[in-house]
Amino acid sequence: MKYKVGIDISGGDHAPEEIFKGAVKAKNEYKQDIVLIGVKGEIEEQAKKQKVDLNGFTVVDACEKIEMAESPVQAIRKKKNSSVVVGLKLLRDKKIDAFVSCGNTGAVVGASTLILGLIEGIERPGIALMLPAKKDSSLIIDVGANVSPKPLHLLQYGIMASVYYKMALKRQNVTVGLLNIGEEESKGSEFVKNVHKLFSTCSVNFIGNVEAKDIFSGECNCIVCDGFVGNVALKVTEGCADVMGRFLLDAVKKSFLGKFGLLLVKNSLLKFKKKIDYAEYGGALLLGVDGVVIIGHGRSSSYAVKNAIKVAIRELEYELTSKIKREVNEICQDSRIREVLTA
Amino acid sequence: MKYKVGIDISGGDHAPEEIFKGAVKAKNEYKQDIVLIGVKGEIEEQAKKQKVDLNGFTVVDACEKIEMAESPVQAIRKKKNSSVVVGLKLLRDKKIDAFVSCGNTGAVVGASTLILGLIEGIERPGIALMLPAKKDSSLIIDVGANVSPKPLHLLQYGIMASVYYKMALKRQNVTVGLLNIGEEESKGSEFVKNVHKLFSTCSVNFIGNVEAKDIFSGECNCIVCDGFVGNVALKVTEGCADVMGRFLLDAVKKSFLGKFGLLLVKNSLLKFKKKIDYAEYGGALLLGVDGVVIIGHGRSSSYAVKNAIKVAIRELEYELTSKIKREVNEICQDSRIREVLTA
Repeated sequence: MKYKVGIDISGGDHAPEEIFKGAVKAKNEYKQDIVLIGVKGEIEEQAKKQKVDLNGFTVVDACEKIEMAESPVQAIRKKKNSSVVVGLKLLRDKKIDAFVSCGNTGAVVGASTLILGLIEGIERPGIALMLPAKKDSSLIIDVGANVSPKPLHLLQYGIMASVYYKMALKRQNVTVGLLNIGEEESKGSEFVKNVHKLFSTCSVNFIGNVEAKDIFSGECNCIVCDGFVGNVALKVTEGCADVMGRFLLDAVKKSFLGKFGLLLVKNSLLKFKKKIDYAEYGGALLLGVDGVVIIGHGRSSSYAVKNAIKVAIRELEYELTSKIKREVNEICQDSRIREVLTA
Repeated sequence: MKYKVGIDISGGDHAPEEIFKGAVKAKNEYKQDIVLIGVKGEIEEQAKKQKVDLNGFTVVDACEKIEMAESPVQAIRKKKNSSVVVGLKLLRDKKIDAFVSCGNTGAVVGASTLILGLIEGIERPGIALMLPAKKDSSLIIDVGANVSPKPLHLLQYGIMASVYYKMALKRQNVTVGLLNIGEEESKGSEFVKNVHKLFSTCSVNFIGNVEAKDIFSGECNCIVCDGFVGNVALKVTEGCADVMGRFLLDAVKKSFLGKFGLLLVKNSLLKFKKKIDYAEYGGALLLGVDGVVIIGHGRSSSYAVKNAIKVAIRELEYELTSKIKREVNEICQDSRIREVLTA
C-alpha cells in the first residue's frame, strides 16, 4: 500500500531548496506518494532548478509562510494559508496520511493540537526523539512541545512513549524513567517530586529517577522530562558533539603523525559521525495528537528531510497512532490511573 | 604567603583514598598548607598505606560522615562532627582560608549557607563551573545548588558570575546570557521570561537569551540558568563526551587501518581527552557564600582533587571573595537594581 506523505516545503532554515531536494530523494528511495505543500511558484522554481518532473508529485499551494522566529499562536491564527495550517488540514481530512515539517516547532505543535485534536486521555502533545545509546536506543520525551507542563502531562508522556517504544522497537517490559539530577527519590525540584509520585500510581514499568547520563547509556528505554529541560538536553548534546569533533580535529592536525593517522581513521570517523548525527534520525514524533506528525530539525539538510519522511512512513507501516490510541485508552481505564486522571 | 586549604577527606565516591592522595599531590605541587579534615583513624591509615609523613599536614578529626545519598538538611542538623560541618566552621573561624569537598553537594551548599552566611545582597548561593569553549571559556551558573530558584536568584547569579569572570580571566565587558530554548524574547517558560525582564533592569552586560550550544561556543562569557537545568546540562555534557569517546573507539577498532591510525593519533586523543575532562577543571565555585568553598565532582580521582585544591588557591590569590563582595555591593547600590531587590 502506498502512503501519502505531506511535506512542508516552506518550513526550515534551508527551505525551500533543501526541503524540496529531500522530498525528491525520499520519493525516489521509498516509492511513496509525496505531497509538496508550499508556495506553488517556489516549488515550480525548485523543480526547474533541480530538473525534477513535478508530474510524479501532488503539489498543494499554500501561499503563506510561518517564519522560524514568529509567535506560534499569532501565526496559526493569522496565516490560514500557511503550509503548516494547510498541511494539517489535509491530514485531518485524510487527504494525506502523515505530515512532516522542519518549520517553526511551536506553530506545528499548536496547529496540530488545534486542527487534529488530541488522543483521548491525553491533555498535551509531547515531542519524542529516539537517540542512539551505548546499549540500544533511548526515547526522550518531551524535547520542546510543552515548556511549562503539569506533572500529569509527564505521566501521559511516559504512557505514550512506552507504547511507542514497544511498537517501534518490538520490545517487552519497556522501562520508563524520570529525568532528574539524582537517583534518590528526595532529589530534584518540587515539580519532579510530584511527577515521581504520579508515576507510582500507574501501570507503566516506571523505574524511578534517571540521570542525564542514562540518555546515552540506554539503561532506560524511555526518559520523560519537561519540554524546557528536554530541549536544553538535546541542544547540549548537539553542541557537545560539535565542539568535541572540532577539538579532536584540532588536536590531531597539530602533529604530522596525527595527520597521517587521521587519514587512516577517516572512515571510522565518518561512521562515527553518522551514528551521532541528527540528520540520520531525521525527525521527532509529535505524540498525543490524532495523526502522524513528524517534526524535523530546523537546520535540516535534504538528507535529514529524507530521513524525516522515512520516520513518517515507518510510523504509518506500524500503524502506531491507532496502536498508541488503543493502549493509552486501556491504560486510562485502569482504576488507579483513572483516579489520578479525574482528580 | 601560604594559604591554609582545608580538604574534606570523607567526601566523594572514592573517599578517603583518592581524596587523601589528591591532597598529598596538591601539597607537593603547590607548597601550601593542606588541612586534612576527616576521620583521624582513616587519615592515619591512608598515610601509612601510602607511606606519607603526616607531619607536613594539619589533621583535624571529624568522626562523622555525610553519605552521598543522605538528605542534606537532616545530615547537617544531626552530624555536627561531620567533615563538612567541621571544615566549614574552621573556615568561618578563619582557621583555614578555603574549604574543598567532593562530598554530598546539597550538604556542602546547605552547611555553607548556614555556617558562613551569604554575601550582602545575595539570597541564595549558586554553583559556578568554568567549561572549555571553542573560543575562550564559559562560566555556567547554577549547576545544582538551587533547583527551584526565584527569578531574582538568577539575576544575582548573573551579577556574581560576571564579577568572577572579570577577575579570574581578567576581561572587560563580560557578557551575561540567560539559558533558554531559543534566542527570541518570547521563548521559554514563564520563569525564564520573568528572569529576562529582571535582567533588563540591571547594569550587567546582559545580552539576552542564549542557547545550549553557546555553552560550547564561548560567544557568551557567563550563562545563567536554574540549578535543575544547569545540572542536567552538565551531566548531558559528561554523558555525551563519554559515549562519543566509546563510539569513536569502537568505530576505529573495527578496521585494521583504523587500529594503526589510532596509534598515530593517540597523543592527540589524550590531549583532547584532557581538554574535555572534568578532572582537569577540578572544582566548581560556590558563589554567594561568605568564604571560598570549592565543590569537586563526586567521582573525583586524586588528580581531580588536586586540581580542585588548585582552584581554591587561585581564588585566594585573586582575593575573589572580597572583590565579588565589593562589586556586588556596588551593583546593588544602583538605584534601578535596588528597586528590584527591595520589591
